[in-house]
Amino acid sequence: MKTPKTKSFAPIGHKRWVIPEGWIPPTSHGPEPAMLSHEAACVLNISDREAHLEFTIFYSDREPVGPYKITVPAHRTRHIRFNNLADPEPIPRGTDYASLIESDVPVIVQHTRLDSRQSENALMTTMAFAGIESIA
Amino acid sequence: MKTPKTKSFAPIGHKRWVIPEGWIPPTSHGPEPAMLSHEAACVLNISDREAHLEFTIFYSDREPVGPYKITVPAHRTRHIRFNNLADPEPIPRGTDYASLIESDVPVIVQHTRLDSRQSENALMTTMAFAGIESIA
Amino acid sequence: MKTPKTKSFAPIGHKRWVIPEGWIPPTSHGPEPAMLSHEAACVLNISDREAHLEFTIFYSDREPVGPYKITVPAHRTRHIRFNNLADPEPIPRGTDYASLIESDVPVIVQHTRLDSRQSENALMTTMAFAGIESIA
Amino acid sequence: MKTPKTKSFAPIGHKRWVIPEGWIPPTSHGPEPAMLSHEAACVLNISDREAHLEFTIFYSDREPVGPYKITVPAHRTRHIRFNNLADPEPIPRGTDYASLIESDVPVIVQHTRLDSRQSENALMTTMAFAGIESIA
Repeated sequence: MKTPKTKSFAPIGHKRWVIPEGWIPPTSHGPEPAMLSHEAACVLNISDREAHLEFTIFYSDREPVGPYKITVPAHRTRHIRFNNLADPEPIPRGTDYASLIESDVPVIVQHTRLDSRQSENALMTTMAFAGIESIA
Repeated sequence: MKTPKTKSFAPIGHKRWVIPEGWIPPTSHGPEPAMLSHEAACVLNISDREAHLEFTIFYSDREPVGPYKITVPAHRTRHIRFNNLADPEPIPRGTDYASLIESDVPVIVQHTRLDSRQSENALMTTMAFAGIESIA
Repeated sequence: MKTPKTKSFAPIGHKRWVIPEGWIPPTSHGPEPAMLSHEAACVLNISDREAHLEFTIFYSDREPVGPYKITVPAHRTRHIRFNNLADPEPIPRGTDYASLIESDVPVIVQHTRLDSRQSENALMTTMAFAGIESIA
Repeated sequence: MKTPKTKSFAPIGHKRWVIPEGWIPPTSHGPEPAMLSHEAACVLNISDREAHLEFTIFYSDREPVGPYKITVPAHRTRHIRFNNLADPEPIPRGTDYASLIESDVPVIVQHTRLDSRQSENALMTTMAFAGIESIA
């Protein structure tokens, strides 16, 4: 039994999120794509409106890069791998970075890394940091 | 509804929680149930009233599914494995999802994954995201 | 060069914290105490006053147990292993539990588990959930 | 103080952060520096002004040590390894500690540990705890 299409959910979430930790392991073990070393921003949009996200990537030694534009449909989740961001440019592997995520509707963002550089994988996750300020 | 025997606790928690990251590893190593790959929502209800929870599961490519109904007695914790949710339908393994958890009394929710796809297990945890909006 | 004893820090933290996830792995690999499977509540008290903490442990199938009394001196951290809580009774291994931590001065609490059931250890951590309500 | 070339970002973050968990694994496996056991505070400064950070390290059995002074340029991230803090003194390995991080501009702080004491590494991360009080 699926939820009927007409159901709406009370709003929840924020429009601005930050993940200060970012580092894509340069190597992997195991079958892809599941065991490919990666970093992900898992986004939930429970609203009735499509969410338009803009990622900005910050580095330690050069100007920020972005926006990377991502769409999350209404009532959907998207687990976005930083590995796959390509436009305006890929994120280099083995490099410290951080990310700012801005959305036009409230969403919720969780950060996860799978590190399979060694034969056994390691996992870590945290809720991203939510800002309450409005988008400039 | 249980009535506590001797002591009540000051209220703490929220009625709405979100876990954007969800993915049940499709395989496992080691003795079950402890080493079975799983995702859990650990819930604490410190109130004097039974908590009635409704889980809604969101996917990347289809309408949300729910509600999954779970009861957490007064003064009790329940570590709910997403693997075991069955009604209205099981959550498919190896599939991106996210969850919205709504309760009629304030609770606290923490997300944990044990991944035992490989011979050594990996763990991750985070507090879920709490919403302050009332239930629609 | 140590900070002089007279220095005070602006207050930070909360008086009530919750960790919904609790499960002490029943077995371990590797040299103790560093590699002993454990769960810890890491507490920082930056205030000028000794903090008196009371832990209450919640279970899935019986009444809560407590208080477990712990003292954290002024300007000190204590990484408290749930494994070592003994009075009024030890926490059974391999059992789901949750914890409520109440302090008479504001502190900050972080939850960490080291699981060394297998030959390679797994780690997880999260900030505990902070309540803003006053102690009953 | 750098001046951004083309774009400013709306402010986000806090000036005071706490990480109650701290413990630098005393040993490592694998090639350095990537696989060196370490603890890191990942900091993002999205403001247009250079951020001046002061770390204070708290111990279980002696007075706090600090300040350790760190600069994060405007529009940059820095992933600061506690292992590398040297002035006023290094943090001893295998020792419980906690940290207070104070900044003159709002930043966001995430805590990560890589533990490579065994042949397979373990990871954990969490957003640090943000205080809303002003700096004393």
